[in-house]
Amino acid sequence: MIKKILAEGIGTFWLVFGGCGSAIYAAGVPDVGIGYLGVALAFGLTVLTMAYAVGHISGGHFNPAVTLGLVVAGRHPARELPAYWASQVVGAILAGGALYVIASGMDGFAGAGGFASNGYGELSPQGYSMVAGLMIEVILTAAFLFIILGATSTGAPAGFAPIAIGLGLTLIHLISIPVTNTSVNPARSTGVALFADTAALSQLWLFWVAPLIGAVIGGVLWLLLRTTED
Amino acid sequence: MIKKILAEGIGTFWLVFGGCGSAIYAAGVPDVGIGYLGVALAFGLTVLTMAYAVGHISGGHFNPAVTLGLVVAGRHPARELPAYWASQVVGAILAGGALYVIASGMDGFAGAGGFASNGYGELSPQGYSMVAGLMIEVILTAAFLFIILGATSTGAPAGFAPIAIGLGLTLIHLISIPVTNTSVNPARSTGVALFADTAALSQLWLFWVAPLIGAVIGGVLWLLLRTTED
Amino acid sequence: MIKKILAEGIGTFWLVFGGCGSAIYAAGVPDVGIGYLGVALAFGLTVLTMAYAVGHISGGHFNPAVTLGLVVAGRHPARELPAYWASQVVGAILAGGALYVIASGMDGFAGAGGFASNGYGELSPQGYSMVAGLMIEVILTAAFLFIILGATSTGAPAGFAPIAIGLGLTLIHLISIPVTNTSVNPARSTGVALFADTAALSQLWLFWVAPLIGAVIGGVLWLLLRTTED
Amino acid sequence: MIKKILAEGIGTFWLVFGGCGSAIYAAGVPDVGIGYLGVALAFGLTVLTMAYAVGHISGGHFNPAVTLGLVVAGRHPARELPAYWASQVVGAILAGGALYVIASGMDGFAGAGGFASNGYGELSPQGYSMVAGLMIEVILTAAFLFIILGATSTGAPAGFAPIAIGLGLTLIHLISIPVTNTSVNPARSTGVALFADTAALSQLWLFWVAPLIGAVIGGVLWLLLRTTED
Repeated sequence: MIKKILAEGIGTFWLVFGGCGSAIYAAGVPDVGIGYLGVALAFGLTVLTMAYAVGHISGGHFNPAVTLGLVVAGRHPARELPAYWASQVVGAILAGGALYVIASGMDGFAGAGGFASNGYGELSPQGYSMVAGLMIEVILTAAFLFIILGATSTGAPAGFAPIAIGLGLTLIHLISIPVTNTSVNPARSTGVALFADTAALSQLWLFWVAPLIGAVIGGVLWLLLRTTED
Repeated sequence: MIKKILAEGIGTFWLVFGGCGSAIYAAGVPDVGIGYLGVALAFGLTVLTMAYAVGHISGGHFNPAVTLGLVVAGRHPARELPAYWASQVVGAILAGGALYVIASGMDGFAGAGGFASNGYGELSPQGYSMVAGLMIEVILTAAFLFIILGATSTGAPAGFAPIAIGLGLTLIHLISIPVTNTSVNPARSTGVALFADTAALSQLWLFWVAPLIGAVIGGVLWLLLRTTED
Repeated sequence: MIKKILAEGIGTFWLVFGGCGSAIYAAGVPDVGIGYLGVALAFGLTVLTMAYAVGHISGGHFNPAVTLGLVVAGRHPARELPAYWASQVVGAILAGGALYVIASGMDGFAGAGGFASNGYGELSPQGYSMVAGLMIEVILTAAFLFIILGATSTGAPAGFAPIAIGLGLTLIHLISIPVTNTSVNPARSTGVALFADTAALSQLWLFWVAPLIGAVIGGVLWLLLRTTED
Repeated sequence: MIKKILAEGIGTFWLVFGGCGSAIYAAGVPDVGIGYLGVALAFGLTVLTMAYAVGHISGGHFNPAVTLGLVVAGRHPARELPAYWASQVVGAILAGGALYVIASGMDGFAGAGGFASNGYGELSPQGYSMVAGLMIEVILTAAFLFIILGATSTGAPAGFAPIAIGLGLTLIHLISIPVTNTSVNPARSTGVALFADTAALSQLWLFWVAPLIGAVIGGVLWLLLRTTED
């Protein structure tokens, strides 16, 4: 169990350090910056790489919503959920802290700013409403769980799941960065909201509620499909 | 059979929600937007992810032209075609509706605009004629079916088909977004044309006719190759 | 043998149609165009997709330099080289023609321009000399053959070669589009040079000579490595 | 052993030629240049392609820090480390030389400039301090080794490691090009620092020290995880 907790903590550290780090340091550099496309790729690759590295140890969730959805679908023991959630949140916060220290070493550093945090309304990158944010986070997390459950099911080709899941997270970011800056992962949202100069913490509730609802829907949807008569 | 229909409906929902959603929300954001390259990647990843998730259930078509081409090549039973088409179109329209609701939550929303619909002539992104649009949709759908049939044939390495097919759709978009906004999929075209503010619906016929013709050509081409003497 | 020739012809058609097509139609669209990065990805994906589709039929060369390098390394029978070259060149020219017809359907079409052809000196995208062009085409084709021979050798994991080879071609384009517009493939160069408005045809010799020299070097280098004592 | 040394030399040549070459020739071309995103992809693809080509011969390190980390984790014999390091550095320098000769063939060539070298403080692309550079290079190299050790462990799916490792290097560049221009590889840093017009050589020590420290941490971290009680 300690092994799994370590793996989840390290994996979630990497997700936040890599995904949010690429957004903070590299997205907005003039002319050669990586933009939303590069950030989307970075988030997906954090999961692809760590799922290949430690997926066989902990399952490679790195996300409280994923753990919940797998529990709902009967793929992960419910009793491990609290420890998974705790290690994911701790890993995410440590990553946020490391990102902050490095960011503060930039010449002309003037505060964390949004710090790649998630938001709606005034804190949405392109000004989308709370309802729009809630809706897209629910839909995308549901689809994410559905993909995870399908790609790791016994019918799917073995070994490819980290590609499908990692690039699925890339796809999710390609759609929704302008809407909420993309969460689908409460730990990721928490890890950077603590350091943002904005009111991100006051909106953090939505990025726990919506992904967790979406994860349950995704898990149930998969169960419905699996148990449908052929 | 209900299982397959559900899988096709969900998969096509995802294709339209992810592919068209990335185009509507994220392509044109100034400086950091994902551009045509990001949209091309998003469309491909919708297919890659869902093909790994439910390909073993329904075959993972998510596209009426693909279903037709597979029927022509003798890879899918013709009697299932109507139900596949229906579920694909319904999934696509539901995705179009969800995209519309979210889009309307954007601050300063002023109508759907083109809404990632396909078009030619005045509705072509870069002003390509109807003949050019017809030609490129036929060629690209034929190639798409040829790749699908080849990559899922018994001679090809097992498990990799979703990568070849998904990234094949990305490639198709890299070529043709400027010409027709890229269809090769009548369901995808239908799902957003219904919501566009433009005359997209009046041009929808081409995005049924051309992909279906292309799919038949691709299926026949593959049959010719397969039955050629070694 | 007819089967192999058909497969090579179709595959090379796709390489030129997809790679050069993305460059001609989509690279330079203002703000949302795919740029050199998108073109690099497109070329790589033409090979990745067709290698999965017909690699088990013809080997999936789609390139006269590749066929030569494989013959040098003893991986392909020399007697098939003329037919392979012929079908590759024919496929490439047919693709160039199709691209031209579609391009001419664009509103305000004013001639083919460079038409994604390869060049050096005045025809190099960023003004690189003939010697620089020769050198980079030799090095890159040698590396390409080395990767192809290694990734398809018995020691390498099975099934992954199309990914390594296709993305290897993407990498080659990421390096050298500014220098020569990237050939490493005499058929690709020929297929579009015939339609360019520029003096591309007068420089075509280099894009046969350099890739063929590079392919021989790559084949020999692999043989040297393979036969080195452990 | 000669075989392994040749493979490492060729692989590291390719890493520097492809990764740094894409940065030097293609990153900054106006409008259509590949930017940091393209450079990140290029570095990753050098490793992905060569790991499939010669990974079964030498292990596919192409990086002194990787060799050290594998030795620390007990995955590679310590006695081979000096020869590996030597061949990696020689390959990198040869690549730097080849890049320089080609670059000098560009019309209006006015010196090597930064030549894709790594740096901190005044030589950091976005002005990050020495401490920030040291910290991010240590963290990223540690994560890189952790991914390499995990993805090549017996529990991970076979054959996928070059994808996880190559795209892991892409991810590392997406995060840190603005900070240090991304090293995590002392050979890569050495190969181009020798040709830069800047004071890159005077900062080269950091790009040996930080990656080597990071590699040891990554190796130890993996050992800790592996030996933790389940």
